[in-house]
Amino acid sequence: MSELRQDPITKRWVVIANARNNRPVHLKKNAEENKPGVNPFAPGNESLTPPEVFAFRKEGTTSDTLGWWVRVIPNKFAAVSLDVTCDEDLSGFHKKKPAVGSHEVIVETPDEHADIALLPHDHMTDIWRAYRERMQTLFQNPVTEYVQIFRNQGYGGGASLPHPHSQLISLPLVPKNIEEEVYHCGQYAEINGRCLFCDLIVEEQRTKTRIVAENEDFIAFCAYAPRFPFETWIAPKNHAADFSNATENMLTNIAALYQEVLQRLAQVLGKLDYNMVLHTAPRNLKSPLAYHWHVEILPRHVQRAGFEFGSGCYLVTTSPEQAAGWMRESNNPEPA
Amino acid sequence: MSELRQDPITKRWVVIANARNNRPVHLKKNAEENKPGVNPFAPGNESLTPPEVFAFRKEGTTSDTLGWWVRVIPNKFAAVSLDVTCDEDLSGFHKKKPAVGSHEVIVETPDEHADIALLPHDHMTDIWRAYRERMQTLFQNPVTEYVQIFRNQGYGGGASLPHPHSQLISLPLVPKNIEEEVYHCGQYAEINGRCLFCDLIVEEQRTKTRIVAENEDFIAFCAYAPRFPFETWIAPKNHAADFSNATENMLTNIAALYQEVLQRLAQVLGKLDYNMVLHTAPRNLKSPLAYHWHVEILPRHVQRAGFEFGSGCYLVTTSPEQAAGWMRESNNPEPA
Repeated sequence: MSELRQDPITKRWVVIANARNNRPVHLKKNAEENKPGVNPFAPGNESLTPPEVFAFRKEGTTSDTLGWWVRVIPNKFAAVSLDVTCDEDLSGFHKKKPAVGSHEVIVETPDEHADIALLPHDHMTDIWRAYRERMQTLFQNPVTEYVQIFRNQGYGGGASLPHPHSQLISLPLVPKNIEEEVYHCGQYAEINGRCLFCDLIVEEQRTKTRIVAENEDFIAFCAYAPRFPFETWIAPKNHAADFSNATENMLTNIAALYQEVLQRLAQVLGKLDYNMVLHTAPRNLKSPLAYHWHVEILPRHVQRAGFEFGSGCYLVTTSPEQAAGWMRESNNPEPA
Repeated sequence: MSELRQDPITKRWVVIANARNNRPVHLKKNAEENKPGVNPFAPGNESLTPPEVFAFRKEGTTSDTLGWWVRVIPNKFAAVSLDVTCDEDLSGFHKKKPAVGSHEVIVETPDEHADIALLPHDHMTDIWRAYRERMQTLFQNPVTEYVQIFRNQGYGGGASLPHPHSQLISLPLVPKNIEEEVYHCGQYAEINGRCLFCDLIVEEQRTKTRIVAENEDFIAFCAYAPRFPFETWIAPKNHAADFSNATENMLTNIAALYQEVLQRLAQVLGKLDYNMVLHTAPRNLKSPLAYHWHVEILPRHVQRAGFEFGSGCYLVTTSPEQAAGWMRESNNPEPA
């Protein structure tokens, strides 16, 4: 069973995916408690995973063998699938539909101990090229309404395997957070004739207090009203709704600024559990100004608890100005 | 500084409260790692907390001395305060206002090792009486638009002290989750002339598969489209928007069903980290049918990660029907 269900009170769609009960949890309370086990993402273990759908690999090497440095595979414990696994029911009190989509793992490096903040810059750019390639491919399927790319680092970030990897899930509907952001950006564009995110960047550049770092194409800043202390957003400086249209030059520059932000966070907070999420335009954006793609980095060193899950109001005990100040002052080591 | 800030993209209000940086964290990764320290909630340590605002205590004993069995005190590390701590700015690009409100701790028992699921039923009823009393009192302040009552159990639930306690935060605005629920309930009432929650209860009673337990006044069921595996809601069977109007009889019955649900969850899942949140009508509900108060119990044995925080779509790997079945079959010990 893998179905999308809508909560009648909040209208939120969730995925109920029983099969994932069986997924391995190699990270328990912390990395030190790991039971030694077979690492399905390690080079040499390619046969333990479903066949790869994309890879950067040495010329002349063949799929599902050694020679890759970034490898994309279907998730063995997929939350969604391209098979129809339940009937659609949108007319009853409770509404559901099949969770039709793809769930993939981007294995980011053959080195299970690598710190991705310190990967060579070209390597990190290839990870972003893989994101773009998979997003482009998945949007070619007309059932895809959205593709959520995300990364869980460490137990606190919800990772179940320590080997560096990110994931993507494509969905046949636009999930709640994206729908909300698109709604408010669309409303703003209609009233002001400008992109809300572009105006936010202008405001951040004017006040400067929350800016962490910049390069030619991107700006990184601590969110004004974050859900997590040290929550940092990275956005293209020039208007761009859809990540899958990012140029080669932009991929090079997002890779660099992403690594710089991760390094600065680690300098301030130490070894860091976090989530990275990529927000991009859904299919059929009403106006090209109604969205602006960006990356959110959500440090997970502080628990979100009853107040946050109950009210939807978040309690944050480090001001974004203080966080950004510490991150600016931190020593930024050069990537290898 | 304690201010409410609005995120420009999602319109979510959050609390930025720098002072809480200094709060104690006695629970680290798990209870076993606790450093021995002074427990400010222990009987005999009443002078270590701000003066109590309410208590159930033995006749003849005086405030802030021994003799209490439920004690409500202002939170020493308050997220909000009745002092105005920043200027309001609702006209600029970024919007903020003072986080004016009360943040209180309900110390649930003098016994720091008590399992609240097993407290005598009368004692648990007094805890619910304390919730009602404080909510009534805080709504008398015209600045209060909402009162969020919540409980964090264990490290996974975000508790920072192991002594059994719950908390409340009153806010000068209606937080996002409540606003959303009230919006959808209001819309439904307008179209159908009935309460959405009342109809949900009828549907759950018809299908029965998600019901966990019932008594005279309340029904407990696993949510159809939950955010957490085993997420269980408890709601009055007869329409009631506002918890602060709950009768003595209702308090007796919510106390009993709450304990039963916690016991059944512990039977199935073992020692349990969870959040309890109480959702009630905000001030100025447009129609008496536009809300229905209820309790949500959110087990926290599974991490919420990048997919959930990124998309707002939740991935749940135990179906509510399976969870409710296990909870129904569990052995329900009688309260002491």
